[in-house]
Amino acid sequence: MSMPPISRFPAPDLADLPNDIRERIKAVEEKSGFIPNVFLALARRPDEFRAFFAYHDALMEKPGGLSKAEREMIVVATSGLNQCQYCVVAHGAILRIRAKNPLIADQVAVNHRKADLEPRQRAMLDFAVKVAERSQAIEDVDYEALKVYGFSDDDAWDIAAISALFGLSNRMANVTNMRPNDEFYMLGRIPKT
Amino acid sequence: MSMPPISRFPAPDLADLPNDIRERIKAVEEKSGFIPNVFLALARRPDEFRAFFAYHDALMEKPGGLSKAEREMIVVATSGLNQCQYCVVAHGAILRIRAKNPLIADQVAVNHRKADLEPRQRAMLDFAVKVAERSQAIEDVDYEALKVYGFSDDDAWDIAAISALFGLSNRMANVTNMRPNDEFYMLGRIPKT
Amino acid sequence: MSMPPISRFPAPDLADLPNDIRERIKAVEEKSGFIPNVFLALARRPDEFRAFFAYHDALMEKPGGLSKAEREMIVVATSGLNQCQYCVVAHGAILRIRAKNPLIADQVAVNHRKADLEPRQRAMLDFAVKVAERSQAIEDVDYEALKVYGFSDDDAWDIAAISALFGLSNRMANVTNMRPNDEFYMLGRIPKT
Amino acid sequence: MSMPPISRFPAPDLADLPNDIRERIKAVEEKSGFIPNVFLALARRPDEFRAFFAYHDALMEKPGGLSKAEREMIVVATSGLNQCQYCVVAHGAILRIRAKNPLIADQVAVNHRKADLEPRQRAMLDFAVKVAERSQAIEDVDYEALKVYGFSDDDAWDIAAISALFGLSNRMANVTNMRPNDEFYMLGRIPKT
Amino acid sequence: MSMPPISRFPAPDLADLPNDIRERIKAVEEKSGFIPNVFLALARRPDEFRAFFAYHDALMEKPGGLSKAEREMIVVATSGLNQCQYCVVAHGAILRIRAKNPLIADQVAVNHRKADLEPRQRAMLDFAVKVAERSQAIEDVDYEALKVYGFSDDDAWDIAAISALFGLSNRMANVTNMRPNDEFYMLGRIPKT
Amino acid sequence: MSMPPISRFPAPDLADLPNDIRERIKAVEEKSGFIPNVFLALARRPDEFRAFFAYHDALMEKPGGLSKAEREMIVVATSGLNQCQYCVVAHGAILRIRAKNPLIADQVAVNHRKADLEPRQRAMLDFAVKVAERSQAIEDVDYEALKVYGFSDDDAWDIAAISALFGLSNRMANVTNMRPNDEFYMLGRIPKT
Repeated sequence: MSMPPISRFPAPDLADLPNDIRERIKAVEEKSGFIPNVFLALARRPDEFRAFFAYHDALMEKPGGLSKAEREMIVVATSGLNQCQYCVVAHGAILRIRAKNPLIADQVAVNHRKADLEPRQRAMLDFAVKVAERSQAIEDVDYEALKVYGFSDDDAWDIAAISALFGLSNRMANVTNMRPNDEFYMLGRIPKT
Repeated sequence: MSMPPISRFPAPDLADLPNDIRERIKAVEEKSGFIPNVFLALARRPDEFRAFFAYHDALMEKPGGLSKAEREMIVVATSGLNQCQYCVVAHGAILRIRAKNPLIADQVAVNHRKADLEPRQRAMLDFAVKVAERSQAIEDVDYEALKVYGFSDDDAWDIAAISALFGLSNRMANVTNMRPNDEFYMLGRIPKT
Repeated sequence: MSMPPISRFPAPDLADLPNDIRERIKAVEEKSGFIPNVFLALARRPDEFRAFFAYHDALMEKPGGLSKAEREMIVVATSGLNQCQYCVVAHGAILRIRAKNPLIADQVAVNHRKADLEPRQRAMLDFAVKVAERSQAIEDVDYEALKVYGFSDDDAWDIAAISALFGLSNRMANVTNMRPNDEFYMLGRIPKT
Repeated sequence: MSMPPISRFPAPDLADLPNDIRERIKAVEEKSGFIPNVFLALARRPDEFRAFFAYHDALMEKPGGLSKAEREMIVVATSGLNQCQYCVVAHGAILRIRAKNPLIADQVAVNHRKADLEPRQRAMLDFAVKVAERSQAIEDVDYEALKVYGFSDDDAWDIAAISALFGLSNRMANVTNMRPNDEFYMLGRIPKT
Repeated sequence: MSMPPISRFPAPDLADLPNDIRERIKAVEEKSGFIPNVFLALARRPDEFRAFFAYHDALMEKPGGLSKAEREMIVVATSGLNQCQYCVVAHGAILRIRAKNPLIADQVAVNHRKADLEPRQRAMLDFAVKVAERSQAIEDVDYEALKVYGFSDDDAWDIAAISALFGLSNRMANVTNMRPNDEFYMLGRIPKT
Repeated sequence: MSMPPISRFPAPDLADLPNDIRERIKAVEEKSGFIPNVFLALARRPDEFRAFFAYHDALMEKPGGLSKAEREMIVVATSGLNQCQYCVVAHGAILRIRAKNPLIADQVAVNHRKADLEPRQRAMLDFAVKVAERSQAIEDVDYEALKVYGFSDDDAWDIAAISALFGLSNRMANVTNMRPNDEFYMLGRIPKT
């Protein structure tokens, strides 16, 4: 079987990409052992590539009140509801690795209410899911439900922004038929010893 | 960590179960290497246990126009939409094994429209999903869409009945917080050589 | 006018059916004065027939915390929301008879919130309807709302299972265009003196 | 059992009503043998009473391309979807009488797609239901689907206006807990000989 | 550019209209400086015209617990949700004028939860919106939420009736492609000095 | 009346902002005569500010198959459905200016199906709205509907990306109660002579 296409749009040739984008892609490849398709899919549009990953890094890599595993929980829960294959599979892998838990991603993707979560994580995902599905109805009471578990208003911003950024990403992946790399499916399923 | 409970309802003791149910459970355990929690969860109610598995076998084990892998695709696609953790995880494993495809279950669970399916399987899942979500609007035109791919009216019955039976199962698993066994998550992910 | 067909699928000839199924059908006919179409429609598939009625009897005929009339209320309320003509008409008749109330079935079928119910029955139907429509969101708080009216966790299981089994039945009736017998429409409307 | 109230709002005393309203109510009582509760419920507000029944008569009593039974089908189908107990029960009775068909009202109330309708009536109800549920999406193509069965643009207006007026009526009955008179439940169920 | 049509249905000639209708239209024209298209669109059906405006006046012009601006808020909020271009634009203008507030109409049309409202107006619109979207679920608790802000049961009737009448109007405008007059867009945007 | 806050989060002091951000804000102020609140609201998080506006410029300012007015139509139509007050009001103003049409923004915000659009713009908005509401169901047939009007696959990407980016923006504005500046409401309503 030949490799299936990475998306509806042809992947650009690495050699044709601007230096900064090619460098970022090579760095990812070195670290992961493969190039996640989202990098090639978005590289077709260098300015959008740069903006997307700048936004991603601003939310997912910075210090703050949410652990990195919790941020990935938000991505997986909302991507499940948005029915985005790429993000559920790729960020499911990252969540398994960051949480050091081989089960959590599949649980959160299907129904966060039934997943093995701490109460604060449950509250965090309830907020994130409401942002994804009915942001027009977010009000003080939703912030207060977060405060019970120690989340500040800036934590609420983080939760909302991650849900919103991946809502963008989910829509682009759905519209372009972005395909998760086969490698993601197994990542983080076998705990390292 | 102690074993988490199999569901909101305590598991019965195998020794207390009627013989036929204990025998079925032991046979499954021998074959799978573990007892899938649905057997213990439903055994609390022997008559319902017998009826459920009789229905299951009547649809999933009989000969017919759908392959066994295709029947599991129906279970996984509709259970994903019904947000049933138990059925997505457990039947996802069975689907991987039956289809000899380590990727298909996660794809179908998230969004069957974007999964690696043959056109006839796509039509089959469109019908199954409509049965799960809006059966009141099923009409001749839906049967005709199946006929294009060679599905008979009796095949349509099979698709509908599998969607409907697992709709029942999804509801019971959701209501009882039925927990998939940890073993399911990895089954079928590493092709046997 | 010739008799309209019982469903999209031709009715089997009673003489061709397995003995146990023919016996059950004859017993029903003797008791009711006619053969409810669901028996003929499902008899096309003997194994599914046996499983369905075993499940039905396990939930609807056993002793328990719900009266027989209350169980039929669950069927009628959820079948109304699932827009299942067969179950609303046939089980509406049974509900009228079991509740000795010629009005209750039409009320419950349209909007259980506005029906002549006791508060415990209202709570029971709220739970049943949530199982039918959003079982993924059933949580402790829903069990607690039942407990206020004395429903045990096993009563909750009964309510959920009846909602779920008739969700299956509604889907099969909708998909096969199962037609309620004309006799059902009048049953139980004129109180016996 | 004492008579249940006609609605959340107390019924006015006939003697206190303006003459024209009392006369209309007496005429209805004479014809029907009882006073339908909607007359008493709305009489609390004489100006709204007059406007509502003027609108009603303008749509339901005038000559036009729809038979009187067909107009009642629209009322029953849309009231079923709006879950209005009063209108389903009361107009169900009128539909049975006008169509001289004891079964049609229950069928249409549950799911018009599965009712014993002529194709033109099915098209009429598809339009009426879309007006009730998603009028913002009505476009040329919906008018064209009516034209296939000989409905003019003015017939489309009639269908839409009946759906819209009873959408108003459904909301008022739901909000006020308007109760259908017990007499309606049996009307038209036993064909006159 | 020639004037676009007022709706899918041709406007009647003023000279052909019954006297009472022509007089009402002329009075409106004199007061407003133009004839709002709804008058011409409904005049095609004189009896419906009279009934609609009688209903309108009974709810919008009478004394009562709601200010005239508040009644228009109800119209604008529910018409926004029903996606009715005519009513949002025309009643948005009236709301700006009645509330002497050039911003409020656009705010309420988009999302009443985020508009510059007093708490009592927010409660009023929550009730109105529930009547428009899910009147079948209106219960005592909804009346009690109004009572907190001093709204009587008769005020609740007013709120519901305005929501319901404009639900009718929204459906007719959507179905007939009723076009708001260009004049409405600017009305009330520049405070008079 | 004191100025209402720009959002739930306090606005930063311009003097405290990084130079590049302050310069961008000053440039906007010079061009518009006021600082749109979104700039101050997002400036609280400089990295997110930079990423958002880089994404914005990459989609809204570049050459391509969509006119600038058409891009704003996408923003207004999807922001209306997402019930985002800030984006409907602010981008409504920009749309009026870019389209040199004082009516189009209010029309598109309420119901793009009833707006004064060319057929190609209608097809463009149908695609954009589906991306906003059900991107998981976008398939070849949706691209083909665009191709009828000459939109390339890259134009489809643009439409989707604008819908997706403003879906992000809508969620952030809804969650933070971002307030549109009063100035926006009147912009572009009075054609320049």
